[in-house]
Amino acid sequence: MGSTSGAAKQDTPVAEGTRPARRRLSVDQRREELMAAALELFSKRDAEGVSIDEVASAAGASRALVYHYFGGKQELYVAALKSAAAQLEARLRPMESGCPLDELASGLRRYFDFVEEHAAGFAALLKGGPASRSGEIGGIVDSVRNRLFRLVMRQIGVHEPGPVLRITLRSWMASVETAGLDWLEHRDLERTELEGMLVGQMVALLRAAADRDPQAGQLLGDLVGGNAP
Amino acid sequence: MGSTSGAAKQDTPVAEGTRPARRRLSVDQRREELMAAALELFSKRDAEGVSIDEVASAAGASRALVYHYFGGKQELYVAALKSAAAQLEARLRPMESGCPLDELASGLRRYFDFVEEHAAGFAALLKGGPASRSGEIGGIVDSVRNRLFRLVMRQIGVHEPGPVLRITLRSWMASVETAGLDWLEHRDLERTELEGMLVGQMVALLRAAADRDPQAGQLLGDLVGGNAP
Repeated sequence: MGSTSGAAKQDTPVAEGTRPARRRLSVDQRREELMAAALELFSKRDAEGVSIDEVASAAGASRALVYHYFGGKQELYVAALKSAAAQLEARLRPMESGCPLDELASGLRRYFDFVEEHAAGFAALLKGGPASRSGEIGGIVDSVRNRLFRLVMRQIGVHEPGPVLRITLRSWMASVETAGLDWLEHRDLERTELEGMLVGQMVALLRAAADRDPQAGQLLGDLVGGNAP
Repeated sequence: MGSTSGAAKQDTPVAEGTRPARRRLSVDQRREELMAAALELFSKRDAEGVSIDEVASAAGASRALVYHYFGGKQELYVAALKSAAAQLEARLRPMESGCPLDELASGLRRYFDFVEEHAAGFAALLKGGPASRSGEIGGIVDSVRNRLFRLVMRQIGVHEPGPVLRITLRSWMASVETAGLDWLEHRDLERTELEGMLVGQMVALLRAAADRDPQAGQLLGDLVGGNAP
């Protein structure tokens, strides 16, 4: 290790003037393009059936460039998933809008913005992925779920959820994930309707949990305040 | 195709009397043993790291026998998952106990019986599995989810769920799945408590959905009857 300075920028291509200048892109931009093309293809077909040539062609790059940047298809796939995961997490950072129920609704809106804009990548991420060498894909998906869970925990100000609250929140997150995949498949409900439904699910699940766990009851109180729907 | 008569029984081993008789098992029993051993191993470690030799050894069989019955590790893995899925489905067929809420509770009990008895197989099935050639593993998981969804639909007497009810029921099924994995990981809640919680979630989710969809409202009425919790 130590020989690849992964994050180092090389914005100035060597001997640029001597090449047939198609488009001048930085290394990062080129990588992004390749990953976007890859995600699009990987989510439409099984990754086994997608060739490096197709990815290169879709991004207007050469096969050699894909190998140069990523080393191989599996590495490209993993890089593309990690990039999509990072985008999702960045987008879900709390906006501190004030009212917790508005914050929840706003978080869901940003989540479904991501789902809609990156439909292919989202499906690729959550369908469990194709051939995963050493379970790497499953590891990425699990790690995203865990980080989103901690994000939700932080946002609601809970440090040590008891079993009932933990399961309730994980259940709700699974609902949101499932609803996202269902929506991409059917698109027979308005997004605003779907988002409202999922806010309603969170309140309903907390209310059910509150019967068993005071922590859930308190969270419900914080969430809906005086105006219980 | 047509050359492999997959389901054909060969209960009488050829020249049985001439072998050192360790244990006499039918082909089906031997297959079952190999699959059970495989599921146990595959769920504890990444399947990439499990060798055919280990599976054979765990089942007290020879490496050659595993290849003879399954052809290879991927085929063994797929066969083991399909077997686990079939067991789960068989167990969830409705008992027609009468009251829908009791039936739901009874179905959940049988589901968690399965989760508990086949913990390793359940985790292997739902963690998305290891390297899946041609997305076969993901296909099995999706197909089980779809069949369980139709089972639930049939049981509640709904033929054409609208979007709100469909998403609500898929959300709940995702909750149950997530709760099962969480329970296997933490085991910090009594099973009966967890099952009761998930019945409560179904009622809560239907109640939230009923605001948007009369079909969900009717189902809620059928489920809880006069005694809404």
